[in-house]
Amino acid sequence: MKDLTRVSGPEVRQQARSGQLSGPTPGLALSYVQANLVVVPRDLAFDFLLFCQRNPKPCPLLDVTEPGSAEPRLIAPGADVRTDVPRYRVFRQGELVEEPTDLTRWWRDDLVAFLIGCSFTFENALLEAGVPLRHIEQGRNVPMYRTNLACRPAGVFRGPMVVSMRPMTPAQAVTATRVCLRFPRAHGVPVHFGDPLAIGIRDIGRPDFGDPVDIRPGETPVFWACGVTPQAVAMEAKSSLLMTHKPGHMFVTDLRDTELEGE
Amino acid sequence: MKDLTRVSGPEVRQQARSGQLSGPTPGLALSYVQANLVVVPRDLAFDFLLFCQRNPKPCPLLDVTEPGSAEPRLIAPGADVRTDVPRYRVFRQGELVEEPTDLTRWWRDDLVAFLIGCSFTFENALLEAGVPLRHIEQGRNVPMYRTNLACRPAGVFRGPMVVSMRPMTPAQAVTATRVCLRFPRAHGVPVHFGDPLAIGIRDIGRPDFGDPVDIRPGETPVFWACGVTPQAVAMEAKSSLLMTHKPGHMFVTDLRDTELEGE
Repeated sequence: MKDLTRVSGPEVRQQARSGQLSGPTPGLALSYVQANLVVVPRDLAFDFLLFCQRNPKPCPLLDVTEPGSAEPRLIAPGADVRTDVPRYRVFRQGELVEEPTDLTRWWRDDLVAFLIGCSFTFENALLEAGVPLRHIEQGRNVPMYRTNLACRPAGVFRGPMVVSMRPMTPAQAVTATRVCLRFPRAHGVPVHFGDPLAIGIRDIGRPDFGDPVDIRPGETPVFWACGVTPQAVAMEAKSSLLMTHKPGHMFVTDLRDTELEGE
Repeated sequence: MKDLTRVSGPEVRQQARSGQLSGPTPGLALSYVQANLVVVPRDLAFDFLLFCQRNPKPCPLLDVTEPGSAEPRLIAPGADVRTDVPRYRVFRQGELVEEPTDLTRWWRDDLVAFLIGCSFTFENALLEAGVPLRHIEQGRNVPMYRTNLACRPAGVFRGPMVVSMRPMTPAQAVTATRVCLRFPRAHGVPVHFGDPLAIGIRDIGRPDFGDPVDIRPGETPVFWACGVTPQAVAMEAKSSLLMTHKPGHMFVTDLRDTELEGE
């Protein structure tokens, strides 16, 4: 298969659309912004948009489609959210019913797609700043945890914030905070560091999502708001129909990481 | 009448609610964030929320109420947007029909209120940083202009960006940019400086809203995205019912200017 690490965002989408790519996207189209996908019916779209607006750290919105349109015009003109993600998840009344590579047969005129910023953006910046990332070193998925930090509810959407964790030295944590301040639309600065119990995490060795990673002497766990939050909240709302990307199988945009910096 | 410059946000709202304050709010409750108000029916609320999300510089959202609720819980718990603004404007099909001091008789169960950041926040910070503001020196309203900068449309909402203008020296403009970078939820950094025609302004001496101000030798006009934009766009959409604050008669929040800094 073609090496997809150095290609553009549109090329990765084309590979997914043609069925040649159905695997995870970390490391693909390096320097292109990747996004979480959440699709809900129009009658829940206002509440979900409001939920994202009220909780910008876990849910930094990059684009929202017009009802019925599958094209995210701001971040990927010409793209189609029904075909351009390598693999999806389809939920009915909160239950997973399918993991297809194409949403075309599920699409309806009243659906609205939300594209939400992702930690890959700041992870690239951290690596460039010389901050090592343990889960990448260990070849694992980043560990993620449910917390006791309540999101601000909106209509039917409510629930706790999910966070991702990266162990690092205090000096690295300060550098990471400085770097992530540049990326408010990719979860921004950490929400916590140190004692996991202070945010309701009982066992740091047993993440709720992803894989555990080693925390070495002299390191402290650093926690970021995570894009799994809106998916978890949307699942709990038990919408008649909810569609998302399969974790790790993201929508790759036309934006470069550097374009996500700033105000 | 009581001196309202040094009181808190809630005290100004109480004065408006009791009918003792029906005038403009600039200079009142100094250091408290003031907000633009736009109220639309539920059936337009998704589109309007999406418009604000797509155009964060003219429309930085501070709070959005649940449909039917008049309480902006994030920025002023216990407040009531129907009574706590000194004076309102009511539009039907885009036509101004009334300028009441109370919206109670117009309120409906399907209305949604949007509270949008306002330039007063960064103007206070500019004055503290030693950047003089001509319209304040001259005791006038800030000059505002329609531009040829198109907002990103959302559903029925579309139209040009409205900007406010403050003349300053190049050194002051650089300081102003640095200061305003701290306030992305109060219009943030300028959108333009220099040649007015470059953004479609034909006569800088004749603003579309507010008052003209003097531009002195060695000064350049500096332009900021303006909170009048969402009102102008909402009026053009000719909603069956649209309610706003009367210009200059803002909703004063519980937030301090410093709380609006950051990500």
